[in-house]
Order: sequence, then C-alpha cells, then structure tokens
Amino acid sequence: MPISPKLSFLPPEEYGAGMSVHEVRFDSIRATAIPFKSSYFVVQPGCQSPVDTHSVHEIWMLAQGEGELIYDGESSPLLPLDFIYLEPPKKHEVRNTGAEPLIIFSIWWK
Amino acid sequence: MPISPKLSFLPPEEYGAGMSVHEVRFDSIRATAIPFKSSYFVVQPGCQSPVDTHSVHEIWMLAQGEGELIYDGESSPLLPLDFIYLEPPKKHEVRNTGAEPLIIFSIWWK
Repeated sequence: MPISPKLSFLPPEEYGAGMSVHEVRFDSIRATAIPFKSSYFVVQPGCQSPVDTHSVHEIWMLAQGEGELIYDGESSPLLPLDFIYLEPPKKHEVRNTGAEPLIIFSIWWK
Repeated sequence: MPISPKLSFLPPEEYGAGMSVHEVRFDSIRATAIPFKSSYFVVQPGCQSPVDTHSVHEIWMLAQGEGELIYDGESSPLLPLDFIYLEPPKKHEVRNTGAEPLIIFSIWWK
C-alpha cells in the first residue's frame, strides 16, 4: 500500500478567539532533512495576529482573504498570491481587513 | 524609505493554455542564503499540469480550488490547506476538477 503524500499537522495553537496556527508535521518524511519549518495560520475577520519578532527568517504566502501587514512600523495591504519576506528581528503582525478568514502559509528557517 | 517586504516573480512560464508557473524572485533578500526555491502555479478549470519528475524534493500547498493529484500512479483528491510532499523522483501531476482556478504554492529543495 503506497504511503500517502499528504502531510498532517500538529494540534492547532490558538491565539485568543481570532487566530489559530497549524504547524506542519514533517516526521512522515524520512528521505531528507527538511531545511525549513512550515505552517498555515488563520485570522478571523476583524481580528489580528499578535506582534511577532524572532531570529529566524520567514516568508508568508497569502492563500485567501485580505489583510493589512504592519512590518517594521510600516503598513501595507495584503492580497492573495502576495509573498512576503520577514527579515529578523523586524516586528510584524497582520490584521484581517476582509469578510472571510485570512489564510497565510508560512515557511521559516535559520 | 523602507524596503518593501513584498517579493516579486519571474516572468510566468506557460504550459499550454491551461497552466502558468510563477517563480518567486529571492534576489531582493540579501541577508541570508535561502535553502529552497518557491513558486505558485495556476491550473485552469478542466486543465492539468504536465507529468513532472525531478531529483529535488518538493512540497505543494493548496491555496485555492479543487484538484485530483496523480502521484506515483495513485489518485487522491486535493482541497485547500492540503500540504503534499512529493518524493523524488516520483511522477506527479494535478488536474483541476473544480470550477475556479486551482492555485498551488510550491517549495523545492535539494
């Protein structure tokens, strides 16, 4: 029986009522060391992510919804298919400015 | 003036009328060596990607739409928020089985 290529997720982490983070499990991949980690997170309409700052590099890929990115003190709109590089340790947060859940895929690495 | 965190893309590569691939440009990121490459690709309704096989590892992240994955000869449905690991050199292709464009984010690494 073939191994499913579909990856699973760790139990979601909730940040208040408005945001959940779902980190990808890579332990089913035995063939290689994965040089990054990955998750997707969901921000509900009218809600925002907590301000984040960290030493790892990160890229956000906007899958669904509309948002406002606050990055290093500057605001810019976010739309589907936007790819965003978050340089460490710059502060970043995102607000859902639309009517549907905002869904962002994330990759981070040292 | 702050540098925008928004990444840009190489000119899209078209595969017939039904698929386009948009590779992310990382040359604006000077702080680090990126240990992967990334793109998003779009498959139009009723269309499919060409069969692909390669020596790099790849992960697909389904952002929008519905599809059918053919991986190593096995078929499985694809829905938004599915993360798929494509082990080299297994053959893979995806068909758009829905009514809207199928959008998949991809990461690949050696």
